Amino acid sequence: MNDALPVHWPMSQFPVDNNELIVGGIPLGQLARRVGSTPFYAYDRRLISERVALLRQCLPEEIFIHYAIKANPMPALLGHLARQVNGLDVSSLKEMTLALDTGMLPGNISFSGPGKSEKELSCAIAAGIIINVESERELQTAITAGLTLQVKPKIAIRVNPDFELKGLKIKMGGAAAFGVDPERVPQLLTQLENAGIECEGFHVFSGSQNLNADLAIEIFRNSFALIYRLASLVKTPLKSIKIGGGFGIPYFPGDKPLDLSVIGQHLRPILAEAKTHLPQAKIIMELGRYLVGESGIYVCRVIDRKVNRGQTFLVTDGGMHHHLAASGNFGQLLRKNYPVAVGNRMEEARTEQVSVVGPLCTSLDVLADKIPIAPAQIGDLIVVFQSGAYGLTASPINFLSHPHPVEVLV
Amino acid sequence: MNDALPVHWPMSQFPVDNNELIVGGIPLGQLARRVGSTPFYAYDRRLISERVALLRQCLPEEIFIHYAIKANPMPALLGHLARQVNGLDVSSLKEMTLALDTGMLPGNISFSGPGKSEKELSCAIAAGIIINVESERELQTAITAGLTLQVKPKIAIRVNPDFELKGLKIKMGGAAAFGVDPERVPQLLTQLENAGIECEGFHVFSGSQNLNADLAIEIFRNSFALIYRLASLVKTPLKSIKIGGGFGIPYFPGDKPLDLSVIGQHLRPILAEAKTHLPQAKIIMELGRYLVGESGIYVCRVIDRKVNRGQTFLVTDGGMHHHLAASGNFGQLLRKNYPVAVGNRMEEARTEQVSVVGPLCTSLDVLADKIPIAPAQIGDLIVVFQSGAYGLTASPINFLSHPHPVEVLV
Repeated sequence: MNDALPVHWPMSQFPVDNNELIVGGIPLGQLARRVGSTPFYAYDRRLISERVALLRQCLPEEIFIHYAIKANPMPALLGHLARQVNGLDVSSLKEMTLALDTGMLPGNISFSGPGKSEKELSCAIAAGIIINVESERELQTAITAGLTLQVKPKIAIRVNPDFELKGLKIKMGGAAAFGVDPERVPQLLTQLENAGIECEGFHVFSGSQNLNADLAIEIFRNSFALIYRLASLVKTPLKSIKIGGGFGIPYFPGDKPLDLSVIGQHLRPILAEAKTHLPQAKIIMELGRYLVGESGIYVCRVIDRKVNRGQTFLVTDGGMHHHLAASGNFGQLLRKNYPVAVGNRMEEARTEQVSVVGPLCTSLDVLADKIPIAPAQIGDLIVVFQSGAYGLTASPINFLSHPHPVEVLV
Repeated sequence: MNDALPVHWPMSQFPVDNNELIVGGIPLGQLARRVGSTPFYAYDRRLISERVALLRQCLPEEIFIHYAIKANPMPALLGHLARQVNGLDVSSLKEMTLALDTGMLPGNISFSGPGKSEKELSCAIAAGIIINVESERELQTAITAGLTLQVKPKIAIRVNPDFELKGLKIKMGGAAAFGVDPERVPQLLTQLENAGIECEGFHVFSGSQNLNADLAIEIFRNSFALIYRLASLVKTPLKSIKIGGGFGIPYFPGDKPLDLSVIGQHLRPILAEAKTHLPQAKIIMELGRYLVGESGIYVCRVIDRKVNRGQTFLVTDGGMHHHLAASGNFGQLLRKNYPVAVGNRMEEARTEQVSVVGPLCTSLDVLADKIPIAPAQIGDLIVVFQSGAYGLTASPINFLSHPHPVEVLV
């Protein structure tokens, strides 16, 4: 076993043995033969468990960790995570079904999203999960649905944070469609009171893919301050508050992993204060990408190798239709290469500069542009790292009507 | 009927009657009730037929028009187009099946794409369709598969154009993975000759989404010059040559429709010359987006209306998971708004500035950012125009696991 990967190589979460990447304890070539076809996604259950354990170790023990299913809804992965986290967050009816299928108690499942339909709200109430309402209309629809179903809805309020934060890669607050402005919370509380429904709590989420511990602390401080302000308007004790998370993972050269120990250290006094302000409230941190992103790889096979106008191309059987983010078309302003390697030539010292492209008849279908990589041949396996979150489900799988890739949890 | 839409409104291909957009002769509200759910895509068969007729009218009659299925593979739309065009181009096994299902003769179907698998090549040979080979490896695989199947493959060669062209929105030539450099064509011709296979012809494609007639003419001139050069190396008469097309459609303010009459005018002498050089060759123009793009709309319903931090948001039941291109995440460097309207308030003179967002819990889920639009209410139908090509199949439909939209041809 060679755990000492080159210094420039950030993806040391996967060991290497005998030139091959090891995923879930299985050499990559063997895993490809087991799956039976390429391309495929593989998620390593050990890495997911280790990530949860790291969070438990670094963060104050009072924190409840929830998983946002939208990051990766693969049922086996969900089942694995559901046994380790304290709750799940869903954003559609199908995600709710998947969450309930894991055996997670409905009271530990929440439903977020700015455009919940009447049907979704009604099903969520029937299931007994907590609805994070994001507008007056949504609350009214939920109240009406509850009356029809003769079930009292469990309602928390998602608040659009009014504090400005610089440095967040993906902003979800400010002039965004999520939640309600703090000024409108009293109106929602009146709606709830008139319907005889207690407010479960508040949900504040500022943005995601944050790699800066100081910024994370600042967000938490601001979020708690906002929640205290709002909690003072509520007559009954809050049962839960959800303070986002937004923890990011490194994708590109220069990205440094988030320093979780710094966050944990600063969170302790913040949580101690929260316990005095909101003694009965669970403090929930909701994470998606951070829990699963680094556990996953996308694997495709080199099916052609060619030189056009002096540039070497590896043409693979996988591409943007399976992994839109790696092609640079999922919210990136500037395309950057995801970490990529030849999974069966991991100890090769030589490199050559190549572009890795997919089989689609479009110039967008690029998995890696002019990267240094071990010289690869037809039949070799190309690995795209950091692919456990916002991978397959965030991709246009029917584009050019190729077969869909398999997903495995190993 | 009011065909005189406001001057700033470029989408005059759809009539308006009694405040409603008319699609396929059906008022939008009635169409939505007929479909039974929102969101949906609707394609207008009249507009598709008119587009083919316009091409026939403007272009020299010697030109064969082929449809590139990847632009929109909806089976009913394919069936409609197959009766009007001269051939189809496919880029995957499933697209080949869809093409053959229309009844199109195999000899009028071609298979393009830089990463064709052994299985795809074998099926294409068994079907008798023309393979545009894009590398030495691919040709060798096809020859071997032909021997195994005891069927002689029909092979054309896709050539990576070596001329430089400025101004093309989406480039497919130069340092790209498509086709082979002209210098390598002799090697492929030797491979073919050794296998006793005649070269069907050449395929040259420079790029797409071109709105400039002069540029189109320059591309055709350069493509023919390249093809004449290559044809002189071939001992048997070429049966077909394919000269791309790459015709674009207007999406954004300032985009002017391509002047087809100018192209037709300049193509006539070019084609007359081609007939002397290549008397037995069909001259094929392959178009995708240009044939279907303007015929289609994406329709979703307003399910919430809210003001956050002073900005008005219409939250709809549709979004980036159905229409990635409109969200600005399909190859666009800078996000621009697709043309959008309130389909049931088409004659409303007042406008307000709103952002139209989808139901997904991500800040990427924006269909239109700060646009002037008729003041809309919950229940209204939002229409995204220019959505007939690279719409549904180019979108991450499983992102957040919402139901898939319906597609109708009307």
